[in-house]
Amino acid sequence: MNKKSFASDNYAGIHPDILQAIIDANQGHSKAYGGDIYTHKAIDLFKKHFGENIDVYFTLTGTAANVLGLSSLLNPYQAIICAETAHINTDEAGAFEKYTGSKLITVKTDNGKITVDDIKNQLFAIGNQHKVQPKAISITQGTELGTLYTPEEIKKISNFAHANNLYLHMDGARLCNAAAALNVPLSVLTKDVGIDLLSFGGTKDGMMFGEAVIFFNNNLSKDFKYIRKQGMQLLSKMRFISAQFIALLSNDLWKKNAQHANSLAKFLKKEVEKIPEIKISREVQANAVFAYVDPKIIPLLQEKYSFYVWDEITSEVRWMTSFDTTKEDILEFVAFIKETIAEAF
Amino acid sequence: MNKKSFASDNYAGIHPDILQAIIDANQGHSKAYGGDIYTHKAIDLFKKHFGENIDVYFTLTGTAANVLGLSSLLNPYQAIICAETAHINTDEAGAFEKYTGSKLITVKTDNGKITVDDIKNQLFAIGNQHKVQPKAISITQGTELGTLYTPEEIKKISNFAHANNLYLHMDGARLCNAAAALNVPLSVLTKDVGIDLLSFGGTKDGMMFGEAVIFFNNNLSKDFKYIRKQGMQLLSKMRFISAQFIALLSNDLWKKNAQHANSLAKFLKKEVEKIPEIKISREVQANAVFAYVDPKIIPLLQEKYSFYVWDEITSEVRWMTSFDTTKEDILEFVAFIKETIAEAF
Amino acid sequence: MNKKSFASDNYAGIHPDILQAIIDANQGHSKAYGGDIYTHKAIDLFKKHFGENIDVYFTLTGTAANVLGLSSLLNPYQAIICAETAHINTDEAGAFEKYTGSKLITVKTDNGKITVDDIKNQLFAIGNQHKVQPKAISITQGTELGTLYTPEEIKKISNFAHANNLYLHMDGARLCNAAAALNVPLSVLTKDVGIDLLSFGGTKDGMMFGEAVIFFNNNLSKDFKYIRKQGMQLLSKMRFISAQFIALLSNDLWKKNAQHANSLAKFLKKEVEKIPEIKISREVQANAVFAYVDPKIIPLLQEKYSFYVWDEITSEVRWMTSFDTTKEDILEFVAFIKETIAEAF
Amino acid sequence: MNKKSFASDNYAGIHPDILQAIIDANQGHSKAYGGDIYTHKAIDLFKKHFGENIDVYFTLTGTAANVLGLSSLLNPYQAIICAETAHINTDEAGAFEKYTGSKLITVKTDNGKITVDDIKNQLFAIGNQHKVQPKAISITQGTELGTLYTPEEIKKISNFAHANNLYLHMDGARLCNAAAALNVPLSVLTKDVGIDLLSFGGTKDGMMFGEAVIFFNNNLSKDFKYIRKQGMQLLSKMRFISAQFIALLSNDLWKKNAQHANSLAKFLKKEVEKIPEIKISREVQANAVFAYVDPKIIPLLQEKYSFYVWDEITSEVRWMTSFDTTKEDILEFVAFIKETIAEAF
Repeated sequence: MNKKSFASDNYAGIHPDILQAIIDANQGHSKAYGGDIYTHKAIDLFKKHFGENIDVYFTLTGTAANVLGLSSLLNPYQAIICAETAHINTDEAGAFEKYTGSKLITVKTDNGKITVDDIKNQLFAIGNQHKVQPKAISITQGTELGTLYTPEEIKKISNFAHANNLYLHMDGARLCNAAAALNVPLSVLTKDVGIDLLSFGGTKDGMMFGEAVIFFNNNLSKDFKYIRKQGMQLLSKMRFISAQFIALLSNDLWKKNAQHANSLAKFLKKEVEKIPEIKISREVQANAVFAYVDPKIIPLLQEKYSFYVWDEITSEVRWMTSFDTTKEDILEFVAFIKETIAEAF
Repeated sequence: MNKKSFASDNYAGIHPDILQAIIDANQGHSKAYGGDIYTHKAIDLFKKHFGENIDVYFTLTGTAANVLGLSSLLNPYQAIICAETAHINTDEAGAFEKYTGSKLITVKTDNGKITVDDIKNQLFAIGNQHKVQPKAISITQGTELGTLYTPEEIKKISNFAHANNLYLHMDGARLCNAAAALNVPLSVLTKDVGIDLLSFGGTKDGMMFGEAVIFFNNNLSKDFKYIRKQGMQLLSKMRFISAQFIALLSNDLWKKNAQHANSLAKFLKKEVEKIPEIKISREVQANAVFAYVDPKIIPLLQEKYSFYVWDEITSEVRWMTSFDTTKEDILEFVAFIKETIAEAF
Repeated sequence: MNKKSFASDNYAGIHPDILQAIIDANQGHSKAYGGDIYTHKAIDLFKKHFGENIDVYFTLTGTAANVLGLSSLLNPYQAIICAETAHINTDEAGAFEKYTGSKLITVKTDNGKITVDDIKNQLFAIGNQHKVQPKAISITQGTELGTLYTPEEIKKISNFAHANNLYLHMDGARLCNAAAALNVPLSVLTKDVGIDLLSFGGTKDGMMFGEAVIFFNNNLSKDFKYIRKQGMQLLSKMRFISAQFIALLSNDLWKKNAQHANSLAKFLKKEVEKIPEIKISREVQANAVFAYVDPKIIPLLQEKYSFYVWDEITSEVRWMTSFDTTKEDILEFVAFIKETIAEAF
Repeated sequence: MNKKSFASDNYAGIHPDILQAIIDANQGHSKAYGGDIYTHKAIDLFKKHFGENIDVYFTLTGTAANVLGLSSLLNPYQAIICAETAHINTDEAGAFEKYTGSKLITVKTDNGKITVDDIKNQLFAIGNQHKVQPKAISITQGTELGTLYTPEEIKKISNFAHANNLYLHMDGARLCNAAAALNVPLSVLTKDVGIDLLSFGGTKDGMMFGEAVIFFNNNLSKDFKYIRKQGMQLLSKMRFISAQFIALLSNDLWKKNAQHANSLAKFLKKEVEKIPEIKISREVQANAVFAYVDPKIIPLLQEKYSFYVWDEITSEVRWMTSFDTTKEDILEFVAFIKETIAEAF
């Protein structure tokens, strides 16, 4: 691939500092399965960012972090309420249903964010033996549509959740992007606003792989080590995930990478807005730019640049930036868009 | 950890050539989820070793390779016949039962190897609706007890299996050790002797992580891409598994690493045999040494060296060697054993 | 309960002819688990009604007939397309997701009936490993909203389904009501129009319990005996389901019972239409009457009569008639409605 | 079938008093799904027999009572310890593994009864994340081998279980036979000796169908109504199970039926013992007689009488008696055995 991609932040490679951490950790033997010093240190760093009372477990994929984490919250006859656009609903190939045996109760949203009212409407069946029983709410921060919840919005949801005996899960595959965009510490969007369970994503912020399942409610985590192993997500040479997290959570690397990606998305948006044939379709709050592009143009652009068509019907596309996207990449891409449009019409 | 461990070959780190391959692959953007050139190249190398007609999919853990692979062979009302000592039965926290909903039919063995007679005795219930229906056999090569199947032994099992409408799976977490010990190409223990499905392990032969699910029967693999994703094992930055496999499967690295580990196990055995208080308990065919050690001595040894007690009742321990174990490590360990015994009695 | 209920057709008891069949079958010993003469005879009768090439298995509940039948059509990474109002989606406590590990893809409808266009819109993800793969369509006949598919409408769906490698399942918990209302044999709504799999309901048409899973495609049924047993639905004293089906399928009892219930629903509708304060909300095609009733009145009516509020927001209720509802029951109920309204306003 | 069968107590039909109870319950409409007066009365009777503090739920099959009950005790990464001969292990087609996703840890026994020592040996892996975690013990009373636990034996197991944070489940498909044989009330074998969860069988003691899941520990039952519905075991016309249980639990019918079957088994044993060519192979404590029969004779006997070969290798057969077996049936059967042997040798 000659060109930088705008398909997803996981088309990028490994941030150099993180790769160096892997290299440095490759010294001699270490206790497998998490008994090593890197894992202990990484957990300490997580506690520094998210509070001392958390329990942290590393998994290999984001789907696993979501699904195994959620499986610790509920029984199969219980259900999760989430946005119709939630990654667990749309892009995990039914992993949630397969692994938990539970049901997702989805609500339509305009912008990927659910509200207390959306949730209220799904609670009518509590106590009815013929219906799945809502047990948790899952929100994504930043959302699959590039939008962000404010801390206040999350707090409202968690207050409602807890008042109704529901847990609150956050899919934080891009939590770093959200925190960087809102310019707040990671705890302000999680611990401080009542999140019970967090899937914290490292891959999309510059790691080679690795996600963390963070429990803010210790009662929920007591058997998670068995869940992780039975869920096929216990890495033997764990130190190599842990070393990556140590790098990511040190020296504000998580924030720098995310800020970079976010700012390049804003820059892309600004440049694209100059092209009259293209219309930005959603607010750009993190590192995703959505736009309506003429369906004739899309395949021509995709000859050189990878990106996803989000909605075939409305001809809406998604462009993601990442920690290594450069202004030059953007300018080159935008020039190519202009050129393609000029030739096409 | 100051000392080399004899706990497991996954206490070792990454072989330098494999780490270098990761570093080299960290260039720019690549299509995620396996659409990259490294993955294509790695698959080509697998075909070189295992035959052109295979289908190959990478997973992140060995448990996942076993469980997801097996799940493609059977329905929940069907069952797998395996040795009681099989890793899928003893060390995967019930992942097989959880994910497939199926049952393992286990047979007792002396040495971790099952025979056609063992299998025959488990087929009495075919056609009986009250009983799970055997659908596949799973063997481990090298076994969990450090023993090896000869190609002829495998062929006998596969002939019987296929004549009885059963598939044959091999858990090859240590297939490299087996092939190196028997001094045969990888295909001789798999494709040539009727294996239908192979879990090929990279981690225990010097990789950071990464396993391969190899289908010798293309009918079985057609939906595996969905199974892998739903099974939470689709890595986004796939190139970093693939690059490792390229290194492992090039320049006979898979064999050199395995031969090294195997020969050090033989060396350890030879040295330990000189200690009258310790009795080697099993034939040493690959990179595991089993021995009876006085129960008073075991915890004293474990103060300096990690290793597993295999059987508390018989006081049998397991010592594993790895690609990076040295003669000095062995001699130092053996000296420590002698010294500990001398002090203890 | 002094009054006849309008809650559901399963508040009724056993039709006298069916009870007599149970009594008559209680003679001596019979082979358990379906090896008895009653089961053979019942299956023969099913073949008379549904065609010689079917395979038939009895289950104990309608939920089981749906879920176990569907489980034989698909793998966990595949999905069923159905109406949002489908019983499998709304009233089976997540049994489908729990047992199959699969996902329901639901489509909104006005009247409980899905169309080819609804289905088409759900096929965009075929081949995409991140998405569940549609494998079958499930329709309910008569629907949960009291409406009916014509044979032509079903045929259109099955043609589309088969052209797109999808199976077509029918939840026929009230198929007898549908066939009676349309005045066609049972085969005209199933075999003749391309149904692959049918859940045939006996309970709501006068049986004590008992449903049939009917396969029109023999390839799909070959392992169903194991699925049924593993699904906890193999009755030991099977003859007592079979005897009931023999009675139901003989002498047009299935039709007489359904016609009776249907005609009483029409009668109820006619009488209720005379009450200006109540508005019939849906077409009455089988044995359900839906109506908007003032929310103040509903609990007053429920003091004497059981029935369900279908939609709290619109204040829509559902009244079901059954094989044993009488004109007197209807007149008494309608009189009570009038009286209650008169007192309330 | 002209002859009474000795295959299983479920080859028998319905006891006349129980059938009459069904007939009597078939009056008008009743609230579905257990809201009827019969169900309330049946539950009251269960409390009379098993203590006021129980929770009782009815299911349709014994497999379902076992599996759904056990599923309320454990998570998928936990396991049940049971005898290798346990019905849940051998004769439920893998329903336990499918539905719970858990593993059965089986122990070999001579007579179908497990002991505290058997259980102790299975607890070594507690706390080890690579291993399933024992969470409950399941015993069968009377066992699948026709033997019985004394109250003291059960108490020893429950004491050990509770001291080790394990629950104790009893598969009581033939609990009535056990209690009748030991001449004790039902509570003496359950509530009084520390059973946490009981599957109480009605079918084999003269009912048409119907089993009860009884929780002696109310914490375990709080969500069982959802489990039962999601488990496809909620009968709509529940009154017809309840009416049967009312009959069974009234006027000592449960005991009379069981005593009758038990005494006929003893009679069969006594008569068979007179035949020198046949050897009774196990103690006859309830309503099963096991015997070694020459393999040439077995198929000849099966031409007229249904029964199971328990072990092909040792040529051991099982003969069951039921509530409706008569002395004449036995004498006729024994005469036929003698005659067959005389002709064969």
